[in-house]
Amino acid sequence: MSGYVAFDAEKVIDYVTHLGHFFAEGETLSCYEFGDGNLNLVFRVQDTQRNSIIVKQALPYARCVGESWPLTLDRARIEASVLRRHGEICPTTTAKVLHHNSELAVTILEDLGQLHILRGELNQAHTFPQLSQDIATYLAKTSFYFSSFYLEPSEKKALVTEFTNPELCAITEDLFFDDPYRDTERNHFPSALQTSVNALRHNKALLIEIAKLKAQFLNAPETLLHGDVHTGSIFVSAEQTKLIDPEFGFFGPIGFDLGSFIGNLLLNYCAQHARIEALPKRRNMQVYLLDCIASTLSGFYATWLKLAKTQTRDLSLQAEGYAEYFLTKVLQDAVGYCGCELIRRTIGLAHVTDIDDIEDDAARLEVQKRALQLGEQLILNANKCHTTEDVYQLIISFVN
Amino acid sequence: MSGYVAFDAEKVIDYVTHLGHFFAEGETLSCYEFGDGNLNLVFRVQDTQRNSIIVKQALPYARCVGESWPLTLDRARIEASVLRRHGEICPTTTAKVLHHNSELAVTILEDLGQLHILRGELNQAHTFPQLSQDIATYLAKTSFYFSSFYLEPSEKKALVTEFTNPELCAITEDLFFDDPYRDTERNHFPSALQTSVNALRHNKALLIEIAKLKAQFLNAPETLLHGDVHTGSIFVSAEQTKLIDPEFGFFGPIGFDLGSFIGNLLLNYCAQHARIEALPKRRNMQVYLLDCIASTLSGFYATWLKLAKTQTRDLSLQAEGYAEYFLTKVLQDAVGYCGCELIRRTIGLAHVTDIDDIEDDAARLEVQKRALQLGEQLILNANKCHTTEDVYQLIISFVN
Repeated sequence: MSGYVAFDAEKVIDYVTHLGHFFAEGETLSCYEFGDGNLNLVFRVQDTQRNSIIVKQALPYARCVGESWPLTLDRARIEASVLRRHGEICPTTTAKVLHHNSELAVTILEDLGQLHILRGELNQAHTFPQLSQDIATYLAKTSFYFSSFYLEPSEKKALVTEFTNPELCAITEDLFFDDPYRDTERNHFPSALQTSVNALRHNKALLIEIAKLKAQFLNAPETLLHGDVHTGSIFVSAEQTKLIDPEFGFFGPIGFDLGSFIGNLLLNYCAQHARIEALPKRRNMQVYLLDCIASTLSGFYATWLKLAKTQTRDLSLQAEGYAEYFLTKVLQDAVGYCGCELIRRTIGLAHVTDIDDIEDDAARLEVQKRALQLGEQLILNANKCHTTEDVYQLIISFVN
Repeated sequence: MSGYVAFDAEKVIDYVTHLGHFFAEGETLSCYEFGDGNLNLVFRVQDTQRNSIIVKQALPYARCVGESWPLTLDRARIEASVLRRHGEICPTTTAKVLHHNSELAVTILEDLGQLHILRGELNQAHTFPQLSQDIATYLAKTSFYFSSFYLEPSEKKALVTEFTNPELCAITEDLFFDDPYRDTERNHFPSALQTSVNALRHNKALLIEIAKLKAQFLNAPETLLHGDVHTGSIFVSAEQTKLIDPEFGFFGPIGFDLGSFIGNLLLNYCAQHARIEALPKRRNMQVYLLDCIASTLSGFYATWLKLAKTQTRDLSLQAEGYAEYFLTKVLQDAVGYCGCELIRRTIGLAHVTDIDDIEDDAARLEVQKRALQLGEQLILNANKCHTTEDVYQLIISFVN
């Protein structure tokens, strides 16, 4: 990475102008940075006709709760490569990569400025009727086409190597599976939650399930995951859904992305108890979120099963009934990872604004308790689910 | 591999002399080739004092049933690397690598000429009291120390990449999981066995289990496997046990090596029905083989569990009860892979002399039927096993 230099607005314009093909010759370009600056620089470059592109550059360090630690620039390569690979399969739901330079850790992306980040929209109780089907299709198609059902083993092994992502995976390994279940400075939660947290940490049955989920995360290169499908990684509008930011991408268990997504919808569900005072409006939003979960599950399952029945190339995996067996395991994994997401977003390092922006301390604490309890019960009961309907019934039996 | 040139005896002596440190200066060296020449050249080099070493060179092709196809020379690197890695953990049960040159695909090994290949010894009804404990310790220690229980995730991911072995794995994927269950020219078995083979191929429950085992083989980099622990890969004497030939090594499911080993003992068990006419002598040999299986299972389990309890470094995987859960799954996998080995060695491409050298056609056919039936039942009932005793009881309920 000897050629790496961090960009500023001027350097971005020079770089883009040098590349040449994004704007009409002679156009005057303007540029400003609007990322949060913790992990990446994000610039918008536009001409006088309001044509624009996004230039994203990874920083060689991460800042979080005041700490600064080195973080591989290779994540920019991973992110651009996952977007391209997933984009070949799901072009309409993946942010388009226009250019990538691994040495500079720079990626140029289509500008999705007309869309909004899903998390903020859900926090405002906005709903998106096409969201669940778009996500279900994206998760089903990308996970099928990069699985052993479809890829030649040698092709898949080469991709597993290409997408080996140890530094970013280590973050997930720590934050999802280790930190919440022990004392570490990275956790943060109100002291009033300590009793609930202690109960989790002394629940032996729960800790065995966490071990299984972590072992699976470490040892199941089933498909090329996005690796970070939370509602902050999804751009939406009334018509469109676009996945961004797959820098945590790697070959892992198929249920991980599905579980992460559902977990974030459930975090929002819990948060709405304190966000929307008027019961009818709150119920409408919560019903939307549950419908979205049900529809994501059934859409994912149906799409995956159809692909498995019609496009499985591996001879052994074509065995009658195997795809159904496999999908049941995927659903159980997803429920488990969903539970992990609920817990780690409540008491670990990285919280969600859905909950943290609730102003009333007592109301926020109640939401946090709901999220913890729901997460725990999902993890403990995941292996009772055999169908998408079982998953849905399990969820609604614990959300209220 | 531009520097590759196939050795002959003269070139071997030049090469060894040039390296310098294996024999006293001025010694007269002699050399002869004694491999089967299908995959590798194997030379013994000795001086006048009967000091000797083995020089093994991979050939860039494989010959089998008349066919010749290219096969990566990288397998020599894999083989030498697995021997070295496993040798660091189990020096007494791993053939010692004295030198390796990846470009020439040459490995110099200690001469184990004073030992004998286990398969031939078992075929002669020779027994080895220390065999099961040596193999159990080797399999338990190597599989534990290269697992996520012990290795840092980043360290393990780097090793998974280093030991990515697509061409050799493809052979196993085809021969274990695909070929036996469909018509292909690579299979061979007597036409009198066709009815039994057809029954296997129409057993839907069996085919689902085969799919699970293949998916696990493809998607579970649990540890650095030897990859080919059959009784032809083990040198024995009354005092020693030495593993050789791990060119199929890769990160895969822990149960695979254990199952392969037990499968080969069971192939010999089945063969003894036709090999030893005198019932008391036959029973003695078969009891030895069953004792050997029981002792391998219990030794493996006890050693692994002790390592897991005392040396697990991963925080989550230290959860109370998780190691026992994990080992149950390993046992079930081993039973399944054991069943696959019985079937594929009976009707697939690569047979075993235990069975094929039985001269009487009718007697050999009966043995083949036993092996197929045993393999099928082990695969179908694997998930009923929760302890090593369960595995043993399952085996003895079907061997007679």
